[in-house]
Amino acid sequence: MNEQTITIIGLLAGTLTTLAFVPQVLQTWKSKSTKDVSLNTFLMFCTGIFLWLIYGLFKQDIAIILANFITFILASIILGLKLKYK
Amino acid sequence: MNEQTITIIGLLAGTLTTLAFVPQVLQTWKSKSTKDVSLNTFLMFCTGIFLWLIYGLFKQDIAIILANFITFILASIILGLKLKYK
Repeated sequence: MNEQTITIIGLLAGTLTTLAFVPQVLQTWKSKSTKDVSLNTFLMFCTGIFLWLIYGLFKQDIAIILANFITFILASIILGLKLKYK
Repeated sequence: MNEQTITIIGLLAGTLTTLAFVPQVLQTWKSKSTKDVSLNTFLMFCTGIFLWLIYGLFKQDIAIILANFITFILASIILGLKLKYK
């Protein structure tokens, strides 16, 4: 498989794993119900994504920075809603 | 910051974002309740992680392969539980 196709797979993967949290944000925003959502999962996930952001900044890798910046915002909203509507 | 510290940050980030889904698996496994968990989020996320796995295989990058292989298993369990206990 040529380099260009592999890059496209990477971009598609990054887009999907980034935007994947939009439905969870919308569902939680509407339902105000988070009982089944794990607080520890989103605490760990937000911390991990924040570290990926730091990693991307030091590596000056725009793909890592952009993907994790968006994911961090989405995951933080879910974490905030979880803390608010425990 | 030196290269070694940046690598450690990357490894820590990868470990956290991979193991972050363990608490959600345990909680869902015990509660059998998934109402608040978004099906679309985990459909998109599992697809994206699978593509990261393909990407890592073609790039022959063991870090990307390992992290996404574990995340794919955990996220698929959550997706399976969501489909089972809608």
